[in-house]
Amino acid sequence: MKKLINAPDAVVKEALEGMEAAHGDRLKITYEPAMIVRADAPVQGKVGIISGGGSGHEPMHGGFVGRGMLDAACPGEVFTSPTPDQMLEATKAVDGGAGVLHIVKNYTGDVLNFEMAADLAKGEGIEVEAVVTNDDVAVQDSLYTAGRRGVGITVIAEKICGAAAEEGKSLAEVAELCRQVNGQGRTMGMALTACTTPAAGTPSFDLGPEEMEIGIGIHGEPGRFREPLGSAAQVVERLATAVVEDLPYQSGDNVLAFVNGMGGTPLIELYVVYRELHKFLDGRGISITRNLIGNYITSLEMAGCSITLLKLDDELTRLWDAPVDTPALRWGA
Amino acid sequence: MKKLINAPDAVVKEALEGMEAAHGDRLKITYEPAMIVRADAPVQGKVGIISGGGSGHEPMHGGFVGRGMLDAACPGEVFTSPTPDQMLEATKAVDGGAGVLHIVKNYTGDVLNFEMAADLAKGEGIEVEAVVTNDDVAVQDSLYTAGRRGVGITVIAEKICGAAAEEGKSLAEVAELCRQVNGQGRTMGMALTACTTPAAGTPSFDLGPEEMEIGIGIHGEPGRFREPLGSAAQVVERLATAVVEDLPYQSGDNVLAFVNGMGGTPLIELYVVYRELHKFLDGRGISITRNLIGNYITSLEMAGCSITLLKLDDELTRLWDAPVDTPALRWGA
Repeated sequence: MKKLINAPDAVVKEALEGMEAAHGDRLKITYEPAMIVRADAPVQGKVGIISGGGSGHEPMHGGFVGRGMLDAACPGEVFTSPTPDQMLEATKAVDGGAGVLHIVKNYTGDVLNFEMAADLAKGEGIEVEAVVTNDDVAVQDSLYTAGRRGVGITVIAEKICGAAAEEGKSLAEVAELCRQVNGQGRTMGMALTACTTPAAGTPSFDLGPEEMEIGIGIHGEPGRFREPLGSAAQVVERLATAVVEDLPYQSGDNVLAFVNGMGGTPLIELYVVYRELHKFLDGRGISITRNLIGNYITSLEMAGCSITLLKLDDELTRLWDAPVDTPALRWGA
Repeated sequence: MKKLINAPDAVVKEALEGMEAAHGDRLKITYEPAMIVRADAPVQGKVGIISGGGSGHEPMHGGFVGRGMLDAACPGEVFTSPTPDQMLEATKAVDGGAGVLHIVKNYTGDVLNFEMAADLAKGEGIEVEAVVTNDDVAVQDSLYTAGRRGVGITVIAEKICGAAAEEGKSLAEVAELCRQVNGQGRTMGMALTACTTPAAGTPSFDLGPEEMEIGIGIHGEPGRFREPLGSAAQVVERLATAVVEDLPYQSGDNVLAFVNGMGGTPLIELYVVYRELHKFLDGRGISITRNLIGNYITSLEMAGCSITLLKLDDELTRLWDAPVDTPALRWGA
């Protein structure tokens, strides 16, 4: 295992300390329980938004805390759900009187723990709504999930809901928007290589030198197909066909196209993938009117990519374009 | 070789096509010769700034083209200098009558070709100044370079000079600022793994499973030491000691600290590295007042990092903070 770390069991805590040292002017970091919180939280009268999940997917979620996106994130250990007490404390930390939205990726542990936290928060008089994202079209059930996994759309939902909350929308409105984004979004991913958790020290699965895995999850869960290594065009054909036909996205649609790297894939390759995706969608009469290209929801050092599409309307486009000021996504601010 | 590409000899062109598809609203892409140019270039009365170099270091340089940073970038083939005609055409494309600054990383091919381009541009009546960056403290001469290599400070210089040009500073002033940034900046990098160019198809060098290379260049050129894999703390001690003692940076200094990933290292590890760097500098009385953490000057999918420090004053800090609007660096705009 070759990693820039000190001790496997200290990675999450030490990365948080790095975030605190780097971004302490705009983020509050706590360790017991572990949370990344907007420095100015709670914002009175604004709906608070929190998310969380296992670490190892950086910058998601901690890198998305800030004005116009999340109010707090709860990092678990690597590929391990955070605990209900983290989520409860985060909920309390960001409640400005207008209630709190939990954006939850569909993994069994995350869902159960967020449910428990929501119940506890409600017991303390905080209004909570939860939206579970489940945009991964690859498989119905998988290693950590009943139903579809929540993946790339989560990043987009956090941005769009963050903008709506910043504008003063109500909890019911922000939650409904989150359901809409999830409903109009689809994702599929693939891997060229496995990844190694610090605790395990060996790769989570084996992929031969001439193999790739199509439809993989963000923890290396098995996908749809293991097949011979293909070209970027073949990979995009596989992923984008499954994504487009699932909703389906149709001729005349405007979409946000999100080409995401899994952590170990360099940007030059993601632009080759984007080229293929643009051609593919163009051939179906689907217009990319917004895009995001980079490593945003990752699986440690896994090489590979995912493709997320979100069907846009004017309102979603406006909220996507609104200012955001977080360590990992920043514009207009 | 596991890469998301179509054909090894098409990677650079197809990645450019991806950039055009993604950012065509704000960038003009040309292919013969290959250039990435601000859509609104030339900006009349503003000093133009161009840079360039081999591809494989993305987002540098093409991802830094836009308002407040570069006016154009010239991408060569992977790890191969661009040609003088690319640089000449870029110079002409961005000349708004106030002259053009060439920011050149110190690699022999880049330096020679930029010199030839500057001579040709001067012959066409364009005022040109060139500044060669050489911030890498690792080695004096190396595989591709006489003298020190130009690495991480180049990113910082492009940002700061871009801000100064946007404010209307003269060519002489912007060039002097670039020399100042280079003079007050130092970098050293390391690798955990090699990288594979698409054309070669096999790793550029071998590193054993328990080895790392300290002081490596951005093309995998040999460094100072090959030694047993160390902890993040040991890696930072090695890199930061060499960097700090070279200028030297002293107690009371304010610095911009840039922790850069080499392309295959996930963000969670870069934050662990940042934590160590913060502790290291704190112990020497050096204050980090600005930071940049992420994969900005890369070596394809190489795992590893580099540390760049820039000694700041109020003016450099102000120019760093100024708005920037490029695909890879964006704030305040």
